[in-house]
This record gives sequence, structure tokens and C-alpha cells, in this order.
Amino acid sequence: MYELGVVYRSIQRADKEVAAKLGALGSATVHEALGRVGLLKPYMRPIYTGAHAFGTAVTVLLQPGDNWMMHVAAEQIQPGDIVVAAITADCTDGYFGDLLATSFKARGARGLVIDGGVRDVKVLGEMEFPVWSKAISAKGTIKATLGSVNIPVVCAGALVKPGDVVVADDDGVVVVPADQASTVLDKAVAREANEAAKRAKLASGVLGLDMYSMREPLQQAGLRYID
Amino acid sequence: MYELGVVYRSIQRADKEVAAKLGALGSATVHEALGRVGLLKPYMRPIYTGAHAFGTAVTVLLQPGDNWMMHVAAEQIQPGDIVVAAITADCTDGYFGDLLATSFKARGARGLVIDGGVRDVKVLGEMEFPVWSKAISAKGTIKATLGSVNIPVVCAGALVKPGDVVVADDDGVVVVPADQASTVLDKAVAREANEAAKRAKLASGVLGLDMYSMREPLQQAGLRYID
Amino acid sequence: MYELGVVYRSIQRADKEVAAKLGALGSATVHEALGRVGLLKPYMRPIYTGAHAFGTAVTVLLQPGDNWMMHVAAEQIQPGDIVVAAITADCTDGYFGDLLATSFKARGARGLVIDGGVRDVKVLGEMEFPVWSKAISAKGTIKATLGSVNIPVVCAGALVKPGDVVVADDDGVVVVPADQASTVLDKAVAREANEAAKRAKLASGVLGLDMYSMREPLQQAGLRYID
Amino acid sequence: MYELGVVYRSIQRADKEVAAKLGALGSATVHEALGRVGLLKPYMRPIYTGAHAFGTAVTVLLQPGDNWMMHVAAEQIQPGDIVVAAITADCTDGYFGDLLATSFKARGARGLVIDGGVRDVKVLGEMEFPVWSKAISAKGTIKATLGSVNIPVVCAGALVKPGDVVVADDDGVVVVPADQASTVLDKAVAREANEAAKRAKLASGVLGLDMYSMREPLQQAGLRYID
Amino acid sequence: MYELGVVYRSIQRADKEVAAKLGALGSATVHEALGRVGLLKPYMRPIYTGAHAFGTAVTVLLQPGDNWMMHVAAEQIQPGDIVVAAITADCTDGYFGDLLATSFKARGARGLVIDGGVRDVKVLGEMEFPVWSKAISAKGTIKATLGSVNIPVVCAGALVKPGDVVVADDDGVVVVPADQASTVLDKAVAREANEAAKRAKLASGVLGLDMYSMREPLQQAGLRYID
Amino acid sequence: MYELGVVYRSIQRADKEVAAKLGALGSATVHEALGRVGLLKPYMRPIYTGAHAFGTAVTVLLQPGDNWMMHVAAEQIQPGDIVVAAITADCTDGYFGDLLATSFKARGARGLVIDGGVRDVKVLGEMEFPVWSKAISAKGTIKATLGSVNIPVVCAGALVKPGDVVVADDDGVVVVPADQASTVLDKAVAREANEAAKRAKLASGVLGLDMYSMREPLQQAGLRYID
Repeated sequence: MYELGVVYRSIQRADKEVAAKLGALGSATVHEALGRVGLLKPYMRPIYTGAHAFGTAVTVLLQPGDNWMMHVAAEQIQPGDIVVAAITADCTDGYFGDLLATSFKARGARGLVIDGGVRDVKVLGEMEFPVWSKAISAKGTIKATLGSVNIPVVCAGALVKPGDVVVADDDGVVVVPADQASTVLDKAVAREANEAAKRAKLASGVLGLDMYSMREPLQQAGLRYID
Repeated sequence: MYELGVVYRSIQRADKEVAAKLGALGSATVHEALGRVGLLKPYMRPIYTGAHAFGTAVTVLLQPGDNWMMHVAAEQIQPGDIVVAAITADCTDGYFGDLLATSFKARGARGLVIDGGVRDVKVLGEMEFPVWSKAISAKGTIKATLGSVNIPVVCAGALVKPGDVVVADDDGVVVVPADQASTVLDKAVAREANEAAKRAKLASGVLGLDMYSMREPLQQAGLRYID
Repeated sequence: MYELGVVYRSIQRADKEVAAKLGALGSATVHEALGRVGLLKPYMRPIYTGAHAFGTAVTVLLQPGDNWMMHVAAEQIQPGDIVVAAITADCTDGYFGDLLATSFKARGARGLVIDGGVRDVKVLGEMEFPVWSKAISAKGTIKATLGSVNIPVVCAGALVKPGDVVVADDDGVVVVPADQASTVLDKAVAREANEAAKRAKLASGVLGLDMYSMREPLQQAGLRYID
Repeated sequence: MYELGVVYRSIQRADKEVAAKLGALGSATVHEALGRVGLLKPYMRPIYTGAHAFGTAVTVLLQPGDNWMMHVAAEQIQPGDIVVAAITADCTDGYFGDLLATSFKARGARGLVIDGGVRDVKVLGEMEFPVWSKAISAKGTIKATLGSVNIPVVCAGALVKPGDVVVADDDGVVVVPADQASTVLDKAVAREANEAAKRAKLASGVLGLDMYSMREPLQQAGLRYID
Repeated sequence: MYELGVVYRSIQRADKEVAAKLGALGSATVHEALGRVGLLKPYMRPIYTGAHAFGTAVTVLLQPGDNWMMHVAAEQIQPGDIVVAAITADCTDGYFGDLLATSFKARGARGLVIDGGVRDVKVLGEMEFPVWSKAISAKGTIKATLGSVNIPVVCAGALVKPGDVVVADDDGVVVVPADQASTVLDKAVAREANEAAKRAKLASGVLGLDMYSMREPLQQAGLRYID
Repeated sequence: MYELGVVYRSIQRADKEVAAKLGALGSATVHEALGRVGLLKPYMRPIYTGAHAFGTAVTVLLQPGDNWMMHVAAEQIQPGDIVVAAITADCTDGYFGDLLATSFKARGARGLVIDGGVRDVKVLGEMEFPVWSKAISAKGTIKATLGSVNIPVVCAGALVKPGDVVVADDDGVVVVPADQASTVLDKAVAREANEAAKRAKLASGVLGLDMYSMREPLQQAGLRYID
């Protein structure tokens, strides 16, 4: 399934403006606009509260306990990218710390999404370099075995292709295929359009039952009220 | 075990003042006063630090990946209630977000306890609407299958009946049966009474070994000191 | 494997200054200096962000759901110690709360590392008494069965002997055997020495590929670049 | 929620014949007839392949690492009962082994369902005494703290009341409230009635799409076929 | 990422003979030949000991607690296929039982791989219809929401495209992309070629240290022997 | 904590006859005789039903995804040994298969206990080479980084020193320190002595309540019977 030992240097990135607009809408709205797919598993959590990032994916496939390819990935980062790291086996080791973050940031990376562990989280927070990870672990890694950079990877249960749009915030991480980004943005914007009106109605005490006209379908489904 | 497709409109809520006093004592003290039972499993965590809520339970039974009954539950909320949501199978989907929170808050709900996922956690924090959940997930849900409202439910391993007192804070969530609320309050108050004195003693360097007269029972149990 | 029902009163503590210096270097650096061993499993998390502690270990072996030996351990604490608690079976009960913390603090303890649950976390945060634990749980414990104090214990997968140096922060908890503390400190200091220079280089845009001379070994391992 | 330190001697058992018939239908069919509720969490597994049991519940609430109440429960067993054991906290200790099984069997118990651990599983298999448990563990328990017998308990996420019908097999464990047992049996029998005909049709190559007339609703839901 | 509500009827299946030969080699050998990638997560276990299957993938994407698309998938099965089912969220419900197995078998399916639950496992064993799943659960599912058939899916952490070769046995489940099947087969056969000779040597007492000439690299890596 | 890159060739093995007698008593009895400590975590399961082994420990510390030291360990095996493998981080990769088993068996090993994964389980079963592991996984490993052989290791939560007695069966794995083996054997034999008599009594219908004289302590603890 995976091609090993390769680095693709020329990847097709999704449009930056589209990525920025999707990022502003947030993971929950984007995920709905995608048809409720494309979400990484909810064990992926930000290392600090309020972390929020979006960008185009540079992908990296790592070996268990080995972060060699992180350095290879660094060179492929362009401003506005977000690195998405998958591992060939479950592993919670700390693949990434403040030195790599310094390097990634210098290259213009907006953040990291890794299906493994991360360390130096206090410094990362001070640097405001957001990371979504499976674990926090002081355990370091070796540099012995090749993986790949910019091949399609499965990260926390989701397929991520280089150049895809990644939106990550407190609610999780969602991936939008590059070729669907514009369409999804349109749907997400439409979805968001009347949220304010709905919120105002609900705040005034109107019930979702009425606002969404649910009473009839509920009755048809057989719902009974008992006093 | 569960009655499906029903909404009980008339429930017997525990006394509001008793609920408030139990809430002020906190989950750990109330749990002890109950005889060390009634605690939801510790995987139930608040979505923000410092969350603290208490109230009388409005219960809702949901289907996997389906939050239809949340809207039905909203109508049954009275000021001072806290909604307790159980699901018929393990599911981490995000059943609840800022729109439902706006509605629940407008009805007077004090918070939500859900054995599933929640989303829009940043906004929920800004709204100061506290939620205790098993997961945070941007994944949305459908509205297709009936559950029930205000039937007894098992939430995170604990039986919760409509009207029971729920106390939730940083230490977890505890449920007090409505008909035991007064008794439990008395015990909890008694337990709390001499805490300040104990704390002062311990702070001054007195050991628990002496304050609780443990040296003799320890010796009888066979404890040996080796220099 | 474990000796039960004993308290060792005379333990050989690692040098305090060495412990302090290791503590200042942090868990990730110390863990590397140890040869990437000695780390407790990453499920051990601090109860509040920014928690940081170091000290010499007073160890305690507890029984499931029973915190009796915590009071026995309190008496053995000397200023600069950190208590490390293991349990004879997996258990998430809240073995430790604000009263014990008051007592431990009065004795001079710097913190607690426990492979179980803890409660009163809000108060513990206000007291600035740091705890690393497997769980947060309001569930209380009994006082019925003996364990031991100051015997070697396995805590969260790591062997901890009384007197060992414990370094705990946002990245996790690492244990340094007392008799290796000086050697490890030397290695850790050496490791830290040129970190600032490296960071500056990486921040200026130099790649790790070049700084660490990785291009040749990567090529020898067969890495291919594709445009 | 739980009443502690009590043993209810007079419980209302579901009808034995109804229990036997439900047992013959199996957990999956009974669970469907109940409206897809009443199932214990799927981590509950039989200790040997082919285990199958049914009976009326004698319930017991245990403390963590403490099996004292198992002996109290033994006395309350009547022929045709199945013991359902809950614990006040998560615990995998081995609460039950060959001696208790010998005693339970002598009293007429059909099996054990326990939200904890069990041991001597080889001997239990030879005795053909079926157990459904969360874990297998050689770890023994103490006898120090009271729980209760024949109170309603929450076992592996399901509410079980004394006298309820329990059906357990390779697919899991389902609980039928005593007062619904007859109704559920009728539904389960009806459900089972035309299974053989359906199976024959499907075996002959007829598709569920046609047998269940799903093509139209699928089309209405928007399903598209692409060649 | 996922296209919803579609069924691809014309898929390119890998060569049947190649699939059969890969199947005969077993998952461990095939996984090595692939470069140690392509393995589903090890929580995927066969429902009975000795289960062994291989085939070309028909893929299906299911919604949580909803097995509607299983019936749609049945029609797309051709003799020699193995069905691979992914779910849009973590769910352990029993999506598959003896009726669907009867239908799948009648269509020529060799087995099922599902990142969810399965039931009627006793009957499935008697039918010798092998299933690899995340869970066994009597819990049934509804038929309300569309997924897709024969789109690329992520199942238990691995990307599976329709037509790929699936090899499943006691050691797990591995997926070989259709376009790499021949190449991988050649590598796997080469790998297997001298296994018998190696086994005979090792059985005679020759050490791997000598057979694989490891002593020198170990010494160079710094291994020290202490008497 | 761990010494890396070393192999201790001269270890002090526990007496073989004592090990054999402890093995015959089984893990549950030995664990009780040890004072209910020394048990590996219950996630350690045999790869086939009925597996039973005992022996003196040869220990090996492995790196994540790396089984190089297994070959080094093979040379240190003497007839009657059982290999105990720990890993420096959580990892489910398949470190051990039929070739290594052939080698271990040729050296006289009685089995393997590994806090990681294993593969070729079907062949291992046919060879009757018992393994207790955390996972079964077809995933192979590399040979790149040194660990150690015959140093004390923590395996699945238990400290194991080279030469210790290991008893493993269907109930789990227990470790007896070499220097306590005789004492523990005496206690275990004494414990076992009157088991037959107890079993006969219980089988005849005598209750544990009476056989163990529990009625009075239960009453003193406050147990109430309600009709």
C-alpha cells in the first residue's frame, strides 16, 4: 500500500485562499460540509487549549520509534503547509520537539498533525506552534529506517494526500481532498450562513422541535408523550 | 430494560435547595456521603478546567450517531436541570454543539453530562456552558431513530433516574437518587464539618497516622518498621 | 517480587543538588541522557498544565482501592522528596486528595506520582501541589490492607527504587537510579550544551538534513527524490 | 444509588420456562426483540468457546479487589439462577475460581456474569461452568468490605435487577426485565419464525435487496450506481 | 475524502491466481514482501481459530450502527471476493450475522473483514464463513443512511481499494494493492524459498547469530558480554 | 534504570526442581503464596488455549519495532529456561515467529513471555511452543538498535530478574524471585493441601459462609438480611 523510501518534491497544493477560508469555518462545519467524513479519530488532541491551524498537507510516513523522515519532510515544507505524520505501527514515542518545531516554523509550517507522540510541549506552547497528537511523551526516537514524504498516508484513520487541506482546532482535525476544496467551501459557507439567525431564535427560547419542524416526523416515528 | 419512544413529561425533581447545597460540597464529598457509590466512570471529563455544575436530571437515551432526541429533551428542561445523556452503544460522535447549548441554556439548563462526544467546545467554553463527556469530536450526527426522554438510564456505568441530583466538577460526576438527597446532604455536611480543623492540623505537621489513630491497627495488621 | 507489610526508614537518597540540576533540565533531556529508558508510560499526566517537579523518591506500594499506606508513607517524607505510588492491580480510584496533600506538603514533599487516581484536583492546583496520575476520580478508598513503604516498586511500567531521582513535567515522568544520577547529569548537561546554537541555526532556516549531515546516510539507505 | 450492606432474600424471579425459551433463542434474537437495548458491553466475553447459559439473575455488588460478597451471594442461589456481579470501580482482579464455582454449581447456578476478572479458567472449562467476564486474571482478592446481594446493579453498562432473565452465549450477554419476559419472548419467537425461510431464499442466491424490497428506498435516499 | 451514496459496479480485480498464491503464503510473509506496510491494526481478530481467507476486495463504507449498505454490497460480490467493511466512526455494533453470511456465501464471498462488530459467531463458525472483526456483539443495526460500495476505504488503519488482494489468517489481515500483486508475489516467493533450509539449520542448534552473521555488526554497535 | 548494550552470561538460576513444582501448582496458587503480588498484567494472554509453561527466566530488553536482541538472547538459553521479553516502549509488532521459535526450542526453551506482539501463531501452536503476549501481529521488525540480555526488566508491569521462576498458564503469568522460590513453594503447597477437602465440602452443598466461618464477621461489619 505504501511506497517506501521516496520523497515527492512536486505536489499539487490546494488553493491557499480556499484553505484559509475553510480554516476560518472550523473543523465541525467543514466536516459537515464534507458529508460527515474525513475526520481523524477523536483521540487526536491539541497539545494546548485554543490551538487552531489550517494549511495544505505535507505528508510523512514514519517507522516505529524513528523520526528520521521528519528532517527529510522539513525541506519539503512551504509557507502555509501543515505537516501530517503517519507511522507504520502504533507508537506513542515523542517524535517531535522544540528543535524540529523551530525548523518547521522557519520553513513556514502552520502546525503538525501526528498519529504518535510529541514532547517539549511547554516550549511548543510558548512558541505557539500547534500540534495535534495521539500522545505526549518524553521518549526520544532513533534515525535508522526510511519512510516516505508526500505519499498518501492513513493518519488516525483518515486518508491524507499531499496538498489536501487540513483544518484543525479544539474539536479535532478534518481533511479536505484538494480537488474538492472549493466545492466543500461553498457548502460550508452555505451551512454557516443562517447559523446566526438560528442561534438568535434558540437563544430567545424557540425550540429546535419547532424551528426544524421535527414534531410531525417524531410523531410519525411513534414518539409518545406520557404525563 | 429500556422503554423506547417515550417522553415522560411529569417527573419528580429533587429539592432545588438540597441540590444546590450538594453541588456546593462537590463530587468527592458527596460521593463519600453516598457510601462511595453513584460515581460515573472517570473517563467522563469536563470540556474545560474549572467546570462545575449541579442540578436535577433530565435524562435522555440516544441511538448511536443520532441526536434527534436531544431536541425532544430540550423541551423538558426546566431551570435548574442538568441533562444526562446515555447512548445505546459506545459512540464518540459529537452529539452536541453550540446551537443545542444555546437552546438548553435558554431553557435554564445548568449543563450536560453525556456518555458520548461533544463539539464546538471552544464556543461552549466562551458561553460557560459546562459539559462532561467521554470524547470531543467534530463528527456530526443524524436524526433518524427514536430513543426516550426521562426514563432511567445507565450513563457511564451509573444509573440515573429523572429528577436525581447530579453534581459535577473537576473530580467527576456523581448522582444522588432524589429520595436520598436530604439524607446524603446531612451526611456530607457532617463529613465536611471538621475538614477545616483536620486540614489545619495536618498543615502544622501532625501526621494522619496520629490524627486518625492508625498506628495501633497498622501494628496489629503486622506492619514492620526496618531501619 | 514485592515484600509486603514493611517500611524501610533508612534509605539512601540521591544527592539533592544533582536532583535539582536534573530537574532543571527536564524529563526529555534526562531521558535521552539515560539512553532513552527510565520513562514512565505516557498515560501518566500532570493534573494541571505547567506542573514541574523533581526530587528523591519515597516509594509506596498500595492495594487496590486502599490508601492506608499513604499515611504511613507521609511519615517517611523528608524535604525534597517526591512520593511515587504503585498499586498491586490496575485501579483508578482517587487515592489522594487535599488533606493528604496538606500533610505531604507540610513534610516537605515536592509532589506525587501515582499509577492510580487522584481527587480534589482543583484544590491541589490552588495549593500548587503537582501530581502525575493515571486518572482523576472522586472515588474514595478504604484503609484495610497493608502494602509497603520504601521498597522498589514498578510504577507505570518503570522500576523506581527509594532514593532515586524523579523528574516530572509536562512531557512525563522519568526516573534516574540514585547511583547513576551524577553520570546522567553530566551527559544531560553535555547534551544541552549546544542546543541553543542548534536552535539558532534551525531558526535561521538551516535544515536538520544539513546541520546533522544526514543527506549522505539517507542516500546510502536508498532514499529517492522524485520531481 | 446503591444500597450497601444488605441482602434481599425474597426476590421475584421471572418464569423459568420463559427464561428457558429465551435462552434457546440466543442473545442476538432476544436483544432485537427487546428493541435493541439491554445488552452488556461487548468486552464481556465467555471464558471458553461455545459457552451458553440462561437463567434468572441473582445480583451481587462487590468492592474493588474484594470478593467477600460472593460467598454471601452463594446462599441466595436457587436452581436455575445465574449470578450477575458488578463492582463499585473498574477492577480486573480474579474474583472467582474453581472453589466458588463448585459451590455455585452445588446450589444450582447456571453460570456467572462478572464485570471483573475470573481465574482457574481451565478447571472452570472442565467443569463446564460458563463465565462471561471482562478479564482473566490469577490475581486473588480480599474479604474486607461489604457490598450487597440482590439489589439492582449496573453490570458492564446494563441495569440488572434480581430476578431478571439473563441470556448469555458467544455473541454476548443480554438482560430481559422480569416483567417484560413474556412479551419479549413472543416478539422473539415471531422474529425467529420466518428465519428459516429467509435463510433458504438467501442461500439460493436471492438478494436481501429484493427479499427486503430495499431497492426503492435506496433509490429514494439517492443511491447512485456507476458503471 | 469519501464519496457517499455511490456504488461502483465495474472494478478492476487483481488476478485470481496471484491472489490465491499470496493467500497460500500467509499474512506475515506477504506483509514482509510489501516492505512491512499494508497491515490492518492488530485489534482485527478472526472469530474462530484457524480462520484463513484470501480474495479480491469488495469494499463497503457503513454508517455507525447502520448496515444498510451490506445488502447493497452483496450484489457486487463475485466468486473469489472478500468483503472489506469500514465505518465512518468507531462502532462495535453487530453489523453482520448468519443471514448476511448465507447471502454473501451464496454470491461466492470468501469472507468478511469489518472494522466493527459481528454476531451469530457460533453459526458463522459452523458455516465456516471466516470473519475478521474488531468486536463480537449481539447488538443489531438499523437501515437508514447511505454509505458507498467499491470506493477506496480506510479499514482498521489501512487503505483498501476495490479489487486489492486481501490475505487474512491467524496473524492478521494484510492488503496488497492490485497493481503491485504480481511483484509482491515474486518477492514473497523468494523470501519463502529458503525458509525450510533456515528452519532445519535452526532446529539443529545453529544460532541465528551465526546463520545471519550478526556477531560482527552487534560488536560494532557496541554490544558487551559480561561473565 | 536499564543498562543498555550488555549481555550477562552468568546468571543465577532458581532451582529447577522448585521451578517444576511451582509450575505444577499453577499461576493462581503461586500468586497467592507470594502474597498476591508478582503477577504480570492480565492483558498478557496465551496464544492458544491450554498453554502451560514454567522455567527460569532469561530476560531480554528490546527496542520498539526491533527484535535484534532476540537472536542474542537465544544463545543464552539453557534447557528449562523461559524467555521474558520487555520493550522500551509500548509496541504490538510481531517480534517473534516460527523461525525464532525453532531456534529457542532447539536451545531448550520452554516458552516465551513478551510484552509485545508475536506472529506465525498457527505454526507455534502446531509446534506446541507456548507464548504469552500482548498482541498477535503479522508486522515484522528490524534489527538496528541494541538492547540487553539478562538484566532485570519490567515486563507487563512486573519486575523480572534473570533466573527468576516464571509460571504461566491460562490464568496468566506470575514471577517468583529466585531467592524466594523455596519459601513460596512451601506456602503454595500448604495452601493447596486442603483444597481437595474444601472442594468436596462445597460440592456437597456446604456454604463458604459456614466453611470459612464468615457469618459472624459479616454481621459485625453490619450486613443486614431483608426478607
